Amino acid sequence: MGKPFLEKLTEVIRLNNSLVCVGLDSELSALPASMRGSADPQFEFNRAIIDATKDFVCAYKPNMAFYEAEGSVGLEALRRTIAYIPPHIPVILDAKRGDIGNTSRLYAKACFDDLGVDAVTLHGYMGSDTVTPFLEYDGKGVFVLVKTSNPSAVELEDIVAHDGRKLYLHVAQKCEEWNRISNGRCGAVVGATYPEDLRAVRAILKSAPILVPGVGAQGGDLQATLKAGLVQGSGLLINSSRGIIFASKEANFAERAAAEARSFRDLINSHRGAV
Amino acid sequence: MGKPFLEKLTEVIRLNNSLVCVGLDSELSALPASMRGSADPQFEFNRAIIDATKDFVCAYKPNMAFYEAEGSVGLEALRRTIAYIPPHIPVILDAKRGDIGNTSRLYAKACFDDLGVDAVTLHGYMGSDTVTPFLEYDGKGVFVLVKTSNPSAVELEDIVAHDGRKLYLHVAQKCEEWNRISNGRCGAVVGATYPEDLRAVRAILKSAPILVPGVGAQGGDLQATLKAGLVQGSGLLINSSRGIIFASKEANFAERAAAEARSFRDLINSHRGAV
Repeated sequence: MGKPFLEKLTEVIRLNNSLVCVGLDSELSALPASMRGSADPQFEFNRAIIDATKDFVCAYKPNMAFYEAEGSVGLEALRRTIAYIPPHIPVILDAKRGDIGNTSRLYAKACFDDLGVDAVTLHGYMGSDTVTPFLEYDGKGVFVLVKTSNPSAVELEDIVAHDGRKLYLHVAQKCEEWNRISNGRCGAVVGATYPEDLRAVRAILKSAPILVPGVGAQGGDLQATLKAGLVQGSGLLINSSRGIIFASKEANFAERAAAEARSFRDLINSHRGAV
Repeated sequence: MGKPFLEKLTEVIRLNNSLVCVGLDSELSALPASMRGSADPQFEFNRAIIDATKDFVCAYKPNMAFYEAEGSVGLEALRRTIAYIPPHIPVILDAKRGDIGNTSRLYAKACFDDLGVDAVTLHGYMGSDTVTPFLEYDGKGVFVLVKTSNPSAVELEDIVAHDGRKLYLHVAQKCEEWNRISNGRCGAVVGATYPEDLRAVRAILKSAPILVPGVGAQGGDLQATLKAGLVQGSGLLINSSRGIIFASKEANFAERAAAEARSFRDLINSHRGAV
């Protein structure tokens, strides 16, 4: 057992002075040509990315789909990647699991015991029966999907409830309950697409960590996102995946990933100071 | 490529005169003692269950969690199980996946191309971006979680929307749209806990297949469930997992599973006629 997730996260945010989460969405067919001949291309690529970016990040977030798609070879690459990530940097497995009771407990076991990650993303639709088995792992964290950044997120997440609040705010309310009973270990996923939505979630989830996908390295809504979600200059994990890991497909991809991660960190920090 | 999912399902419902879906929730630590010494206990157990029940079912539904929890050994057992199921019986992978775009496409690839199942369960929270990549696999099916049978389902699924309808009915409405654009390949999961909820879903999802967990072999709400959800005597897959596969933990477990599957089928059919 390593350090608890929240402690790790707080320390690495300070150590690397960074809110950047790098998404290891290392789709096999999208890897630089120079990696294709390797014996374990997904792992070798990730290793190069981790070596290059580890001083500029606060977390890594592999999305399980990219590994599961390659069968047991992919899962082995994921396992090796997780083991390779320096132990002081938290790993958030973007698994988007969501089952109940005994089944949820087994998913938690697979993520936390077997793969050994620090936190995991979950669907909250089925309620506490999904989330609590994960929170029973002391020292591990959970990020519940609250408002996602994809175009069709509005179809259900934005349904207006009887009290005038949209569905995702009700999910945020449950998150806040789960966060309370777990001493801060239940956070949320809120896309950067609508900073106003992030502000509304932050009003409910007072201090919980919020994982924010959907900000490009170009920094589109970055300032508004930070303004809406930061708590005392922290409390957000700003994710970038392709913008960093696929900054270049040439032989210098790792160097370019490092440069992107560093400049994304610095861009965020320039607004962190100003907020 | 085998036959399309819907065709398989219709034919085996007729052939076996059955609406019974057997949940292969073959948790390693719960298997009969007699299987524990086997080289591949999850697969060997499933094989015995399949051999014993295959004339009494309309589908098998392995829940991925029970296999994923055992790492690559478990996934291999799942793969062997799927390959062993007679090709005329549809396999519904209870994966409860829910991601978007490219990631969703990769999950679909993992389920349909790699594992080769006929249908899969999904979370609809993120909207069409999750579901359509699965429906793009012609001949494959999807079951979206609409109203689940677990105690905490009420926390979010029963939130009343501005129009007076509960959230799960809005999800059902999306299902009906997805069902229309896919020529009937998008069904729903509706627990048997509240037959009135099933009736309300059926009023929206006119002809789509509905997968119903939560009916015990004891047949608690079975009659009400059938009354609420059958369409011309069909259109429901009534799932039973532990009630059948763990009917006995003794050496005669397969024999007892066969007896339970047969009597569950016959019990359902006695009400099918009467509805």
